[in-house]
Amino acid sequence: MMPELFTVLTPQDALRKLFDHLPGHVAAESIPISEALDRVIAESPIAPGPLPSFTRSTMDGYAVRAADTFGASESLPAYLTVIGESPMGRAPIFEIGKGQAAIIHTGGMLPSGADSVVMIERTQKARENEIEVLRSVAVGENVIQIGEDIKPGEALLPIGHRLRPQDLGGLAATGITRVSIAKRPSVAILATGDEVVPADAEPAPGQVRDVNTYTIAGLVERAGGVPLPRGIVPDHFDALYQAARAALDESDVLVLSAGSSVSVRDMTSDVIDRLGKPGVLVHGVSLKPGKPTILAVCDGKPVFGLPGNPVSAMVVADLFLTPALWRMQGLTQPIQYHSVRARLARNIASTPGREDYIQVKLVERDGEVWAEPIFGKSNLIYTLVKADGLMVVPLDANGVQEGETVEVRMF
Amino acid sequence: MMPELFTVLTPQDALRKLFDHLPGHVAAESIPISEALDRVIAESPIAPGPLPSFTRSTMDGYAVRAADTFGASESLPAYLTVIGESPMGRAPIFEIGKGQAAIIHTGGMLPSGADSVVMIERTQKARENEIEVLRSVAVGENVIQIGEDIKPGEALLPIGHRLRPQDLGGLAATGITRVSIAKRPSVAILATGDEVVPADAEPAPGQVRDVNTYTIAGLVERAGGVPLPRGIVPDHFDALYQAARAALDESDVLVLSAGSSVSVRDMTSDVIDRLGKPGVLVHGVSLKPGKPTILAVCDGKPVFGLPGNPVSAMVVADLFLTPALWRMQGLTQPIQYHSVRARLARNIASTPGREDYIQVKLVERDGEVWAEPIFGKSNLIYTLVKADGLMVVPLDANGVQEGETVEVRMF
Repeated sequence: MMPELFTVLTPQDALRKLFDHLPGHVAAESIPISEALDRVIAESPIAPGPLPSFTRSTMDGYAVRAADTFGASESLPAYLTVIGESPMGRAPIFEIGKGQAAIIHTGGMLPSGADSVVMIERTQKARENEIEVLRSVAVGENVIQIGEDIKPGEALLPIGHRLRPQDLGGLAATGITRVSIAKRPSVAILATGDEVVPADAEPAPGQVRDVNTYTIAGLVERAGGVPLPRGIVPDHFDALYQAARAALDESDVLVLSAGSSVSVRDMTSDVIDRLGKPGVLVHGVSLKPGKPTILAVCDGKPVFGLPGNPVSAMVVADLFLTPALWRMQGLTQPIQYHSVRARLARNIASTPGREDYIQVKLVERDGEVWAEPIFGKSNLIYTLVKADGLMVVPLDANGVQEGETVEVRMF
Repeated sequence: MMPELFTVLTPQDALRKLFDHLPGHVAAESIPISEALDRVIAESPIAPGPLPSFTRSTMDGYAVRAADTFGASESLPAYLTVIGESPMGRAPIFEIGKGQAAIIHTGGMLPSGADSVVMIERTQKARENEIEVLRSVAVGENVIQIGEDIKPGEALLPIGHRLRPQDLGGLAATGITRVSIAKRPSVAILATGDEVVPADAEPAPGQVRDVNTYTIAGLVERAGGVPLPRGIVPDHFDALYQAARAALDESDVLVLSAGSSVSVRDMTSDVIDRLGKPGVLVHGVSLKPGKPTILAVCDGKPVFGLPGNPVSAMVVADLFLTPALWRMQGLTQPIQYHSVRARLARNIASTPGREDYIQVKLVERDGEVWAEPIFGKSNLIYTLVKADGLMVVPLDANGVQEGETVEVRMF
């Protein structure tokens, strides 16, 4: 390992360095659209035909030739002969000639000869099979033309787009019921620490239950990945290496929630370096909490060494693991976070040259939303549970003053 | 059916009327926390013990008696005898006496007798088994006390809270690995229309593929529900009633994506009225698109008659079905939508007394985000696909001027 790798980077530089070493290739698979919500498009679906595939009415009324209605008004209506009704779901078998009209429903197919639809409200029955048209219509009025929504050969959705409910509907409309999307990256999660026991175990004095496996798994799921919890490993080089090796071999990403003491962190870094080339890229980020972050790429797979304490682990996973998972899926849109603007309820001091992530609770006071910082040692998981979101004190700021408006990312 | 039921309500009044008739009861089930992400708490989990369950160090350093360090400084250090090392994951078997210290790691258990931790950076090795302490510590410094994070008997999460990754970690920390959450409401989706064919069928002239089943299913999934697509039913009273009856009997919610013509909508309303008491509550909402919305409760189950065209169906489902599904799960927080502030790129006219939902595309121009309205007949599903979000023109507005700042809800 080169010593310069240990230079502390800014969060932005650290992420860029990680991304520079990640393969650009997106692994794809084909799945039914009914399972594709929130997945990312790997191959742009192409419209096989026009949408709509026939000329449709957008109103309940009469299919007409527009020229027959020109100049029509309430005082001087146009008289048209009703020759039939356009059936829903079938092509009308008649043709509209000069002076003729046909009953048509919303979504119905225009009979040939007709070029527009008069809304029923603009007509009046004159006698059996005859109507008065009380206002003229233009050619194409109240009609959707063939291909007006989509033309054949059009790319329906771009590569890198995350599928929303309407996108699934759009694909269904064109008859595309399977779609090529990015595979969900599988993320092996290894908790380490001689003091850590499974959540369902009764800890002896000195032992604590595994928290990070659950928080990280949750974040992985939210970022489109498949969490693969791989249990708890003691703080010994060989045991950790064996477990990490096995976990990485059967997954796309490895997350080690490393112990918190310096010696354990250094051991974690050494283990990661042995997992593949180039190995550790970043060891230390100008970030609080989360300074001892390790970012690595081992033979094309990203590996993350998260600080052991739950708050740091979550902030770091959110800042680095989440964007990496989306990138592996080829997402081109920015990740959408719900955020809220609030006034800061207390002064926050910070050290320039470091990004500080502060947990805050939102409270309403005098009709305004205030962000109350939750101070607490970052070992306390319930500071995160009690928080509504995170605010950031930028790299170069000395802090933020009470009363200033801040952006709180719901978390 | 009473005629007054057909009065057009505002969207707010319509939703309130629906909610007034929904049972308040939340159906609950117990599931493992590893499957509980994004689910809603039905029963508040109670801390079975304190967190942490032993006094822990937050630093690498030495466990000491604070009194032994009082007055210590670089020029006048306190000398302490190192009597051992607190092992990770076990209780130390020794006791710290006056003038004594023990090596301790972050997360390690404080030996009895010790009341604080001196960071390793504030010490210096004097000789074998002796250190110099270069700065005093206070009682409790660098230590987390028993119960500092959570006290026994504390309610860990409130009823109605939607579980986030950190909440799962918080539960794991206390040994709670199962949680009582609201059942996911099952939502039967019936598409109607003589012209509608399944997405994988080749439509004949006059036929269109089913779109709404897919868009509604996507929205249901996002709102924590289980979509149960129930196929396509022709526009005949008996067929629709039979299908609706069967679908409602085996689900918690029924959504009918009704045809678009007036006669079909009226038939849908009659069918819904026969499904149970009180039946149709709202038929018509002052909303565009979506005016012909039907909201009903039939023997305790909500039933929705959505307009048939895809854009209206989605807007209406988003406005009424989504909140109803969250309410059935007992969600107490507001639904979190990602929204973006943008300047409106074109004037929008509207009619006072009606809420208008406008699809917009976000574009960047001169460093600012602009919202470009997408105008198009609401039968065009691709207007929704091309849109980034929705903006609302409020009930009482005549419209919104070009250049005004608007809130765009990403959709």
